[in-house]
Amino acid sequence: MSRYVASIAITSHDVARLAGVSQPTVSRALRDQRGVSETTRAKVRAAAKELGYVSNQAGRALSTRATGRVGVVSAELGNPFYPALLEPLHDALDEHGYRMILVTDRGDLPVEVEPLIDGSLDGVVLTTCTRDSPLPEELRRRGLPYVMLNRVVPGVNSDSCTTDNAAGSRLVADFLIELGHRKIAAIHGPEGTSTGHDRARAFAGRLRQHGLMIPDRWRHRGPFADTTGSTGLRRIFAGADTPTAVFCANDVIALGVLNAAHEIGISIPSDLTVIGMDDIPMAAWPMFGLTTLRTDLRALAHRAAQLLTWRLREPGRPPEHVVLAPELVRRATHGPPG
Amino acid sequence: MSRYVASIAITSHDVARLAGVSQPTVSRALRDQRGVSETTRAKVRAAAKELGYVSNQAGRALSTRATGRVGVVSAELGNPFYPALLEPLHDALDEHGYRMILVTDRGDLPVEVEPLIDGSLDGVVLTTCTRDSPLPEELRRRGLPYVMLNRVVPGVNSDSCTTDNAAGSRLVADFLIELGHRKIAAIHGPEGTSTGHDRARAFAGRLRQHGLMIPDRWRHRGPFADTTGSTGLRRIFAGADTPTAVFCANDVIALGVLNAAHEIGISIPSDLTVIGMDDIPMAAWPMFGLTTLRTDLRALAHRAAQLLTWRLREPGRPPEHVVLAPELVRRATHGPPG
Repeated sequence: MSRYVASIAITSHDVARLAGVSQPTVSRALRDQRGVSETTRAKVRAAAKELGYVSNQAGRALSTRATGRVGVVSAELGNPFYPALLEPLHDALDEHGYRMILVTDRGDLPVEVEPLIDGSLDGVVLTTCTRDSPLPEELRRRGLPYVMLNRVVPGVNSDSCTTDNAAGSRLVADFLIELGHRKIAAIHGPEGTSTGHDRARAFAGRLRQHGLMIPDRWRHRGPFADTTGSTGLRRIFAGADTPTAVFCANDVIALGVLNAAHEIGISIPSDLTVIGMDDIPMAAWPMFGLTTLRTDLRALAHRAAQLLTWRLREPGRPPEHVVLAPELVRRATHGPPG
Repeated sequence: MSRYVASIAITSHDVARLAGVSQPTVSRALRDQRGVSETTRAKVRAAAKELGYVSNQAGRALSTRATGRVGVVSAELGNPFYPALLEPLHDALDEHGYRMILVTDRGDLPVEVEPLIDGSLDGVVLTTCTRDSPLPEELRRRGLPYVMLNRVVPGVNSDSCTTDNAAGSRLVADFLIELGHRKIAAIHGPEGTSTGHDRARAFAGRLRQHGLMIPDRWRHRGPFADTTGSTGLRRIFAGADTPTAVFCANDVIALGVLNAAHEIGISIPSDLTVIGMDDIPMAAWPMFGLTTLRTDLRALAHRAAQLLTWRLREPGRPPEHVVLAPELVRRATHGPPG
């Protein structure tokens, strides 16, 4: 599936090594920033020239806003979470003087590095990487600054901005136990995404601490889509023994559960408590009134735009991980077990 | 608001005039296509060179896939109609070998021509132009091929791909009359968009033919958003005399109406018939069961991608207007007046 040809890129670290200075000094020297002596500047330029670094990347390296455009990589426009995230991200990038260019692809064919490194973008925000995505590592190797937003790739230490999936899922487990639920089901997102993986793990872990296990027949997994919720609920309610509560890995899945419950004739919340995660705008619609975990998507998007701006201005700064704490929004889909 | 500097661009028409040939011949000659003699080819190249046409646009003119990328301009990602349209558009462009790059902007600050004509795109699909948008004319002047999808700009004769807004709205008027409704309300979209304008006009026109008028107190107008529907319904039902049916300019507005009706305690359809337009995926959710006018969004997107491909291959072909006929989808929100 990989169509690009791998090549070994010269990075500012190579230039730093040859010039005998630190990598931040290389960045500052090539950007004509203060705090670098004329001698060091000349040494860095000579090293960069020798390695072919300047000639390849001068256009980008000499200005933090070579193009004024930031690419946002998203694979799932049909998942309403992303439009809800992309709108504030657009505004946040705009405030920093960047235009947002959305690079999309279907989930089954991930976005590759090629269209991102053609010089048309100053940096990238990654929003839908799977846990095994090679994209962050490729971007690092090619020298294009990026920030991971919402989903992260384990083992990749770069700027990231996420909600606290584990803490949020534990909060839901405690809330359900407190309401009196013991028969608890879960509809998970894709195991291959950090959000799907971390939410499932932390939720099951906390239930175990309460001495509870989710039986396999009350567990369903699928993409972050309403159909995952509706299919999952039908499967879970096909048996004789049914749960009194279900934790959904995100709001879109929860809305699918509410729709299937409406069709089957399951009363919410008297027959079943339904909890979502994200608090997308639709969760607050009166017909849904979804009890969910709110992540401040505006704050999340603004912090991501800020991290990327800082990274563009100061390429050598250490990676920063922003983790926002989600909070429970109590609406109309929860109650004690019926 | 306009940040770009206007400049007079040399077009293939200027080259055609100087070379004494037709514009399609210029395109064919510069693309080394068949059907052009060596003499004509030389004449065209000389004229293009004299006018500086080749040097400016050679990269694009010599290949229909200079970049392999098509820009899609959309101002309203928060309106779920657009994700529903953009997903099939992405797939359709992909089938033609193009990657979709989404250029977004807020509704109050339209996308400008500058970021589109920087050489990073082969062509553009415009999806959210207002009726007075200068963008199509700018693109024509700058020589970047484009197609208008869903919304059009009156007076601009270029490739377009739309649903038959007028015929669809007349279909709804006839359907409501047939059901027995005489007290009919309407919640319109923005007057500044062709969809908002054409739907409102055709609907009122057909009711007039049936001898009916929509009183001002049963008329509301706003952006294509659920809040327009909920605010509109509250305003319309604030008076003593209430309608028995409401036509909503799109599904998103209709979903806002259903939510407000749920909150106020208006039974659908016994108290009120609600009709939408578009048939976005959510319209079919069991909790909504919205009766609406379906436009085949997949077909619409595929035809737009096809028109753009043809335009890139043969710049001189006459503009084509594809108009798809919408059809009524009868679900659960209509009935005779209560």
